[in-house]
Amino acid sequence: MLCVNVELKERRYPIHIGAGLLSDNSVYPLKSGDKVMIVTNPTVAQHYLSQVTDTLEKIGCTVKNVQLPDGEQYKTLDSLNLIFTALLRENYGRDATIVALGGGVIGDVAGYAAASYQRGVRFIQIPTTLLAQVDSSVGGKTAVNHELGKNMIGAFYQPCTVIIDTLTLNTLPKREVNAGLAEVIKYGAILDYPFFEWLEQHIDALVALDQEKLQQCIARCCQIKADVVARDETEKGDRALLNLGHTFGHAIETHLGYGNWLHGEAVAAGSMMAAVLSEMLGDLSAQEAARLEKLLVRANLPTVSPDTMQPEDYLPHMMRDKKVLAGKLRLILLKSLGQAYVATDTDQDKVLAAIRRCTQTD
Amino acid sequence: MLCVNVELKERRYPIHIGAGLLSDNSVYPLKSGDKVMIVTNPTVAQHYLSQVTDTLEKIGCTVKNVQLPDGEQYKTLDSLNLIFTALLRENYGRDATIVALGGGVIGDVAGYAAASYQRGVRFIQIPTTLLAQVDSSVGGKTAVNHELGKNMIGAFYQPCTVIIDTLTLNTLPKREVNAGLAEVIKYGAILDYPFFEWLEQHIDALVALDQEKLQQCIARCCQIKADVVARDETEKGDRALLNLGHTFGHAIETHLGYGNWLHGEAVAAGSMMAAVLSEMLGDLSAQEAARLEKLLVRANLPTVSPDTMQPEDYLPHMMRDKKVLAGKLRLILLKSLGQAYVATDTDQDKVLAAIRRCTQTD
Repeated sequence: MLCVNVELKERRYPIHIGAGLLSDNSVYPLKSGDKVMIVTNPTVAQHYLSQVTDTLEKIGCTVKNVQLPDGEQYKTLDSLNLIFTALLRENYGRDATIVALGGGVIGDVAGYAAASYQRGVRFIQIPTTLLAQVDSSVGGKTAVNHELGKNMIGAFYQPCTVIIDTLTLNTLPKREVNAGLAEVIKYGAILDYPFFEWLEQHIDALVALDQEKLQQCIARCCQIKADVVARDETEKGDRALLNLGHTFGHAIETHLGYGNWLHGEAVAAGSMMAAVLSEMLGDLSAQEAARLEKLLVRANLPTVSPDTMQPEDYLPHMMRDKKVLAGKLRLILLKSLGQAYVATDTDQDKVLAAIRRCTQTD
Repeated sequence: MLCVNVELKERRYPIHIGAGLLSDNSVYPLKSGDKVMIVTNPTVAQHYLSQVTDTLEKIGCTVKNVQLPDGEQYKTLDSLNLIFTALLRENYGRDATIVALGGGVIGDVAGYAAASYQRGVRFIQIPTTLLAQVDSSVGGKTAVNHELGKNMIGAFYQPCTVIIDTLTLNTLPKREVNAGLAEVIKYGAILDYPFFEWLEQHIDALVALDQEKLQQCIARCCQIKADVVARDETEKGDRALLNLGHTFGHAIETHLGYGNWLHGEAVAAGSMMAAVLSEMLGDLSAQEAARLEKLLVRANLPTVSPDTMQPEDYLPHMMRDKKVLAGKLRLILLKSLGQAYVATDTDQDKVLAAIRRCTQTD
């Protein structure tokens, strides 16, 4: 078992990473008599709910669960309210613990519920997708969507523990494993060149779900993210770098409607757009951009815009990004592989030109 | 103008108290170019929206507003969403400022919106009821109701400034002024015996809206609450004392349905129940309980249970209180006037007996 600590002063918490941890009662910070509400969805519940419930009941906890409909389109205030209703029906108080068992959507909604229920209850994350394991389970960003924008409503709220059982990836659709690898590659590209090289060496093992390589990879990603978050919990500075490809990617997701492209797929294409723009600005070399593209392709990820989306469709969505300040676009771009920066006020014509270069032509 | 500072380390903020402050641009921490969303309701808007809008526009802010339906029954996730929709329609970003112009409901919903929109934007409180001025505008508690419980969903979130214009009390219904005095009397009863005596001397002037006495009174209440909040921001200890009468009071409000008794009226009757219980437990003297009752009566406040509510109706509601821990009731009771404490595991028969003594009999 590997362990990464997220250092946030009084809210320091550990991330445990290993095979079979769901059944390991030593990693749960719970004791007999604790009241637990597991938030999950029917797909994940069918595989893992009884395993987690059994483990917690052996500890002596009272365990209830609430299942949200599966999918990004249900990451809403209505789903949030399902959790509140379940907690109130069980008379759960401020001493309750919410456990998020599932992917990023479950983690985001359950985390925001934990931040909000009676103004804050304990929260444990058990991410079951690669994307959630390397990204959304670290750093305390929680949110639901609004019909006018993604992740517009939420809180910064830290879990007390994150439990990552890499065996859960065996039941994850391959397409979702690959989508998770988009965020993995992102970490190498923005902050860690040696890790980028490691990925070039081991990407095939990761795609094939080699357990040892997966654990090393997840621990490295969590460590990178944990370091960034510890420096900048509420995203005033450095933390924005983690959003490489996300401003483009959110535009893709919003334009296609949630649930068509996976988040990681949109981030992959978006990262490529950021790389191409970086190259056009004279920062990234053509060879470096090509290495990023090759790595994304080996992980079976898209590197161009969806064929139903025009280059002109991007900017209106991008201007609604949370990083926009005083009406000016702020993008995460690359100086080189392993070195990202925040670009303010990038010329919109250049942005459009980069998107064009990443658009499928017949 | 009086000023009280709430000391919360990096989130220190001032409360300005005076007559005519709505039009005083020096008290608004805003500058030209800032984007402001005023959250208010039609009743308050008719009196004060143009005054605040004009002042902010003179500073050079972009000012929009959103009006929520008036009343505790609209303190819901749906009202919250109206604010998010207004912000997103105007393309307001993370640099927006939300101004709450109204009573406790507006402050609570707007504050929670500010805590949640893009995971947190700036927030200014302009409370226009006495209750909000002395209570809900200080301390950063924000919330909406759930159909199964009051204030069950929310956040601890601090404003950057609170602006209290005592002239706004001239348009407030007398019944609401009196309800605010219930919380004023509470401060004296729990923590400040000299202030309790001051109130015995000046309660008639306060009922008659004497501006100077009102400002002194509000400043004293804000100072008491600010001190408590600074010691205990997230209500792990001392801050619970502020809830004298609230566990009983919430039971009344929930039982009658929101909007029948005013919050302050329920707190008044609830405070009397707590005092009677304290007397039965041998702490408060009969004379002290009688002084509290007399002060409440002089402020035209109820000191007994609503006549449509039976003593047995209280406990099921009270057991759902946020202060309940491990299934045990925690009540705020009085050792003496000016000295409250948290009572854990009070005998439920005694609680019921105290409620009986405060129940109207024919």
